Amino acid sequence: MAKNAFYAQSGGVTSVINATACGVLETARQHPDKIGKVYAGRNGIIGALTEDLIDTSLESAANIAALRHTPSGAFGSCRFKLKDLEKSRAEYERLIEVFKAHDIGYFFYNGGGDSQDTSLKVSQIGEKLGYPITCIGIPKTVDNDLPITDTCPGFGSVAKYVAVSIREASFDVMSMAKTSTKVFIMEVMGRHAGWIAAAGGLAAEKPEDGPHIILFPEIAFNEEAFLAKVDATVKQYGYCTIVVSEGVKNPEGVFLAEAGSRDAFGHAQLGGVAPVVAQLVKSRLGYKYHWAVADYLQRAARHIASKTDVEQAYALGKAAVEFALAGKNAVMPTVVRLSDVPYKWEIGAAALADVANVEKKMPRDYISEDGFGITEACRRYLSPLIVGEDYPPYKNGLPQYVILNNFAVPKKLSTEFTVK
Amino acid sequence: MAKNAFYAQSGGVTSVINATACGVLETARQHPDKIGKVYAGRNGIIGALTEDLIDTSLESAANIAALRHTPSGAFGSCRFKLKDLEKSRAEYERLIEVFKAHDIGYFFYNGGGDSQDTSLKVSQIGEKLGYPITCIGIPKTVDNDLPITDTCPGFGSVAKYVAVSIREASFDVMSMAKTSTKVFIMEVMGRHAGWIAAAGGLAAEKPEDGPHIILFPEIAFNEEAFLAKVDATVKQYGYCTIVVSEGVKNPEGVFLAEAGSRDAFGHAQLGGVAPVVAQLVKSRLGYKYHWAVADYLQRAARHIASKTDVEQAYALGKAAVEFALAGKNAVMPTVVRLSDVPYKWEIGAAALADVANVEKKMPRDYISEDGFGITEACRRYLSPLIVGEDYPPYKNGLPQYVILNNFAVPKKLSTEFTVK
Repeated sequence: MAKNAFYAQSGGVTSVINATACGVLETARQHPDKIGKVYAGRNGIIGALTEDLIDTSLESAANIAALRHTPSGAFGSCRFKLKDLEKSRAEYERLIEVFKAHDIGYFFYNGGGDSQDTSLKVSQIGEKLGYPITCIGIPKTVDNDLPITDTCPGFGSVAKYVAVSIREASFDVMSMAKTSTKVFIMEVMGRHAGWIAAAGGLAAEKPEDGPHIILFPEIAFNEEAFLAKVDATVKQYGYCTIVVSEGVKNPEGVFLAEAGSRDAFGHAQLGGVAPVVAQLVKSRLGYKYHWAVADYLQRAARHIASKTDVEQAYALGKAAVEFALAGKNAVMPTVVRLSDVPYKWEIGAAALADVANVEKKMPRDYISEDGFGITEACRRYLSPLIVGEDYPPYKNGLPQYVILNNFAVPKKLSTEFTVK
Repeated sequence: MAKNAFYAQSGGVTSVINATACGVLETARQHPDKIGKVYAGRNGIIGALTEDLIDTSLESAANIAALRHTPSGAFGSCRFKLKDLEKSRAEYERLIEVFKAHDIGYFFYNGGGDSQDTSLKVSQIGEKLGYPITCIGIPKTVDNDLPITDTCPGFGSVAKYVAVSIREASFDVMSMAKTSTKVFIMEVMGRHAGWIAAAGGLAAEKPEDGPHIILFPEIAFNEEAFLAKVDATVKQYGYCTIVVSEGVKNPEGVFLAEAGSRDAFGHAQLGGVAPVVAQLVKSRLGYKYHWAVADYLQRAARHIASKTDVEQAYALGKAAVEFALAGKNAVMPTVVRLSDVPYKWEIGAAALADVANVEKKMPRDYISEDGFGITEACRRYLSPLIVGEDYPPYKNGLPQYVILNNFAVPKKLSTEFTVK
């Protein structure tokens, strides 16, 4: 007897999390004998708690297919972490209440480290609260910080965006440096790990290519060494381009973005580490500068997504359903790298217990000795992840992204639940 | 008897100014009977003044063809404006000295308003200083502020980048707004005119689509009306995305970016109007915000260039050479719009005297009555300019842009010239 499935997107969205959703939904539709309807949580797990479910069976095959090329989270995502069963029993009991009411036997949760922790907890309600449910986590995070899996869907596309953008900006600055801007600084995401910043390094294939300097969260900011390198780079090549991670800290462990100048009221200056670094360059070296902060543009940039990333995102969604159908539980499909050159990969599996709350750091030997660049080992790891283009369809010059109808599943419960 | 030609790039570079160079060089090579070698100025007109010329005849046809898909200025550009002949006679005499030494009979100058003024002045040295030279200006500027021509190469591609990027970021914010960021602000170029900001409006095809608000330099910032609109938008749609031009001013005529908070020493806060607007939203409405500053990323984004823009950029370069061969002088080829739908255009000509120092403003009726959006007339004008994609070739996931050899022409003069 077929059971319904629950699927939800969690945490910061990416340009390919909908490709994973596409993989889940298209695969589930091929197995009506085992999986009835797939209900998506509106705004992630909050949709389950508030019985705000979306009936994906009412979406056309064309709409579901279009998810593959649509950035963002089509069902809404949320930043919400379930506490431990002991601390927050009411939430878990509510989940079971909703799952029972809608005959849900499969739980697919698409997110990063916190979300895999939630997946693990939900998988435990089977035995702890007596509600059997097949629970599969699906990886997603631009931060690339999940363990075991070779990479996380979302990361490859941000990496490609950053590498392409800093290459283009470097060409721009190179051609203007004689009489104008000599130093350009691009701020990228990565509060705790330098994976995204490191990807900028792929744009530089020769020593003279930009970016000439990368600032990582893993390396305490050394002001004098940094300024010396900027100055030497400008003197040697005429200009200097820099990728800086939002998470860079000073030797005291304070984010540079917060340690920057304060306003007249003593408030920390409005975000952005790029302007802080730019000001430092200006005041100490006197070079004309420009800076950019890519912010959400980087993680939403489906127009320049990595084909490798899109394929892995889809494959992991597909694998999640296949795992469930094969009777696996409390696992997360992973990307297993078979070789660097040519890049080969296959789908593997990790126990959620081994994934939850474990953060994959960037190895120190991926960062050059002086702390300002990436090593060959890092390049070998990163390179295949940005390979291939996967352009969305365009109409009138604009990418055609789908907005689903997201029809609500009629509520069956008379009880309300307030999410705290 | 064939004369040599001089070509230079001037002012801020774009993602398609090299496509214009490609049009100039490929066309000139087809007429060896009339045009000998094309010498490019290294770093623009400075290359002419310092006799720092590049022999483009030494570049392979493949390299020249690759210029069509390479952003930035391949020969180097500069920000340098020739003063009037009366004020700076030495510079003009130096130009003639260099032109004579290298048998240069054609002058092609590729730039914005200031550059067309320079082109006009150089065209006058023929009669005023007795050196006959055929002088053709070629339009280029992301600001889209040259008169007569329907649009300027470079603008269509920035317009496309901005429209695509704000559409993607809007999707991102829409899916996260329930529990996270509700207001997103993207800062774009355009210190004096709102053309680029207006292009963001193309991403919104329905009232609920982002961007919901555009802030133009043409409209004095009305803080209360702005905040009311942000609040109403968040209440109605759950989120609000905003495109803000770097040139937005407060009612006193001061750039918002400068009128923002000051640091502990009273210095104006480090650039960026986006963080100023974000802080206003936060302090007055309390909504969680994010902001991005695209800066050079927007004008260098060849990866998402408008095909229409690339074609016009090339066609104008080609037309410049054809004009010169037809004996025209002191003119600039233009884009003439024949119809909006379907979009049809042809090459026209404008006298440099009519172009120099005239700025094309955005018509007031392109901005909606409340000052926060674009009108149908504006949409009709802008839409065709972003149509079509023209992707560069990729290798290992990165666009393959060409760096020319830029072999120097041996100097013939024993004199030095110092550019002030």
